[in-house]
Amino acid sequence: MTWINENFLKLQAGYLFPEIGRRRRAFQAAHPDAKMISMGIGDVTQPIAPAIVEAMKRAVEEMSRAETFRGYDDGGIGYEFLREAIADNDYRARGVDIDIDEIVISDGAKCDSGNMQEIFGLDNVVAVSDPVYPVYVDTNVMAGRTGGPAGPGRYEGIVYMPCTEQNQFVPEPPDEKADLIYLCFPNNPTGGVATKEQLKKWVDYAKENKAIILFDAAYEAYISEPHIPHSIYEVEGAKEVAIEFRSYSKTAGFTGLRCAFTVVPKQLKGYTKAGEAVDVAPIWKRRHCTKFNGVSYITQAGAAAVYTEAGKKQIRKTIDIYMANAKLIREKLSEMGYTVYGGVNAPYIWLKTPEGVGSWEFFDMLLNKAHVVSTPGAGFGSAGEGFLRLTAFGQPENVKEALGRIADAV
Amino acid sequence: MTWINENFLKLQAGYLFPEIGRRRRAFQAAHPDAKMISMGIGDVTQPIAPAIVEAMKRAVEEMSRAETFRGYDDGGIGYEFLREAIADNDYRARGVDIDIDEIVISDGAKCDSGNMQEIFGLDNVVAVSDPVYPVYVDTNVMAGRTGGPAGPGRYEGIVYMPCTEQNQFVPEPPDEKADLIYLCFPNNPTGGVATKEQLKKWVDYAKENKAIILFDAAYEAYISEPHIPHSIYEVEGAKEVAIEFRSYSKTAGFTGLRCAFTVVPKQLKGYTKAGEAVDVAPIWKRRHCTKFNGVSYITQAGAAAVYTEAGKKQIRKTIDIYMANAKLIREKLSEMGYTVYGGVNAPYIWLKTPEGVGSWEFFDMLLNKAHVVSTPGAGFGSAGEGFLRLTAFGQPENVKEALGRIADAV
Repeated sequence: MTWINENFLKLQAGYLFPEIGRRRRAFQAAHPDAKMISMGIGDVTQPIAPAIVEAMKRAVEEMSRAETFRGYDDGGIGYEFLREAIADNDYRARGVDIDIDEIVISDGAKCDSGNMQEIFGLDNVVAVSDPVYPVYVDTNVMAGRTGGPAGPGRYEGIVYMPCTEQNQFVPEPPDEKADLIYLCFPNNPTGGVATKEQLKKWVDYAKENKAIILFDAAYEAYISEPHIPHSIYEVEGAKEVAIEFRSYSKTAGFTGLRCAFTVVPKQLKGYTKAGEAVDVAPIWKRRHCTKFNGVSYITQAGAAAVYTEAGKKQIRKTIDIYMANAKLIREKLSEMGYTVYGGVNAPYIWLKTPEGVGSWEFFDMLLNKAHVVSTPGAGFGSAGEGFLRLTAFGQPENVKEALGRIADAV
Repeated sequence: MTWINENFLKLQAGYLFPEIGRRRRAFQAAHPDAKMISMGIGDVTQPIAPAIVEAMKRAVEEMSRAETFRGYDDGGIGYEFLREAIADNDYRARGVDIDIDEIVISDGAKCDSGNMQEIFGLDNVVAVSDPVYPVYVDTNVMAGRTGGPAGPGRYEGIVYMPCTEQNQFVPEPPDEKADLIYLCFPNNPTGGVATKEQLKKWVDYAKENKAIILFDAAYEAYISEPHIPHSIYEVEGAKEVAIEFRSYSKTAGFTGLRCAFTVVPKQLKGYTKAGEAVDVAPIWKRRHCTKFNGVSYITQAGAAAVYTEAGKKQIRKTIDIYMANAKLIREKLSEMGYTVYGGVNAPYIWLKTPEGVGSWEFFDMLLNKAHVVSTPGAGFGSAGEGFLRLTAFGQPENVKEALGRIADAV
């Protein structure tokens, strides 16, 4: 008899975005003429930059000729041309020395941040911020690293670290023991960022407790303030205790092309129950090469073009469009009397809902009255209740119209 | 303290192909002038068919304009245009009714066959053929579904079903209990195929034991004999007990583009420990949408072109090239006095090594004397000892040269 993995049955409701999709479709079906504007799911709208398009066209052309055709990406960890560009541009340019052997190319930071937990034991204590990107939690539930539901959006056995207005959405290391700590800065969903000093506390905590930080830097390209670190490795000693996730999804509009990478430094150690220190990087590569088979060559060729002079300028222009949206959203909502966070170093605006209005209730109000799709903060965890996430990834004219409609609706 | 997943430490040696790669590179370094020919790793060499290239170019072009740009593939299960084409061409055309909701698009059959075990409980008994595609075994070892090593290439707790000359490489259902049964036909590595009658025995076994068959049909496009089923669903009742894996890697040369799919029929049930029957399909989708984020739109557009009239003709031509290689390999090796299997309905030839010569020894001989890279049968399991896998995926002129060199060497 085939037993299912009953941990899946512990999962609460659907994954957040399908639930939003369902409500959106239900509303659209009932109001077929309503022109919906999405400020919900964090998907981009600007087209792929010309330098990247050209590189992908060349790659398609190469695949059409036997002399230049490429099959499996050897071992599946990614082409050297891309890993070299990453080491130079994302790290050495910021004073961080990362070897190309520490970089593994993948098809998404969602996949990486979901898969990484597999290489760690089931009895590690997981710590996450609250609100949190649901993938960190759900993948640990599926793996059996938690108990059952413990209140709305929470699970037994996970350490939740509330991100609130009081701590400016950057939690302190917990008093209790935590082994695997998920941090995301610039933060999804709050848009908050951590300074070097704040990250240093986490690195110190991890060293002291032999814990590992899983640092999601998928939004680093949106940082505008020069003192904010783009990589956790800008903090001294972080290589001994941190894994970093990066992605081209938001940096260069790759949500539909799929490319990301992880950095697992050579210094990083995990432990056996017998107390033996074990290198983590080879275990991650072993998992990757066994359960994955590389990213499309066309996509990798496109990702490498992100680092050309033309590519850099073009993706900067796109990010500037989104960040102009973010500025407008912040300003207009503030004018309407709302309290807003984020949107300065991140493409997310974290809107405080009016006193006594729940976040799903506010979501439904925006959907019904303004035909604007947002993301209720409660969907990211109980500390997200009373907030709403708005993304800056829309077309500028749509963002303007959405803000006008919201102003009319409230 | 962060514990590693110690199951990874149970894994024997490296994953097979990296090990072959290491030996190949070591030989090449010592003999820089040697022109190596690969008949080892199952990677294709023919370029992507023109109809697919055109579709991908159009897709790149679409990604360059805001009006036609595509971000996330909604939910990550694949575009309807592709799932419709699959349901029509791969199934309805062969008299099998599969709904598009039962199809989930992914980035590889390696990934799917490695990930599928996650949705099942850890105490299921896994049965695999021996020799076996290592991914089935290694991913179960990583998950903790086995004990430690039990002899070369084997693990405690797995049911191994020897595929031998006696049973013509098609095992009978085991006498002992097995819950999750991996079958692969046309088989990698032996090139063997199963008839409907043989598969029927497995379907009956699975029904009787409430077991689930994980059926890897990645090589179905190479079947030349009309009585051989392409899908396990051609066997009545299979939808109640089988999951099928398919891939464009070998069908259409997508090893470097990454596209595959799974079929999990609505009828398929797993069980909770309390004895409750649970639908498997929604659990697989939940896993997929949480830990994966869709296949590149460009790749999906290319995969859909596989089903156009032009695409079908062009990929047929490529498969014919490979199968002409297979025929030549069979004939020449037979002339040299070797016993060979496979190569009729599969791109793999399973060569019996001379009496008393081990498969790694024969691998090294071919590498050293003929500069031909093969795959030692022992790398696929202990019943693979005494055999060697040769692939038919080379350029025809290279295959001819390799066969000439082998004739000279032996």
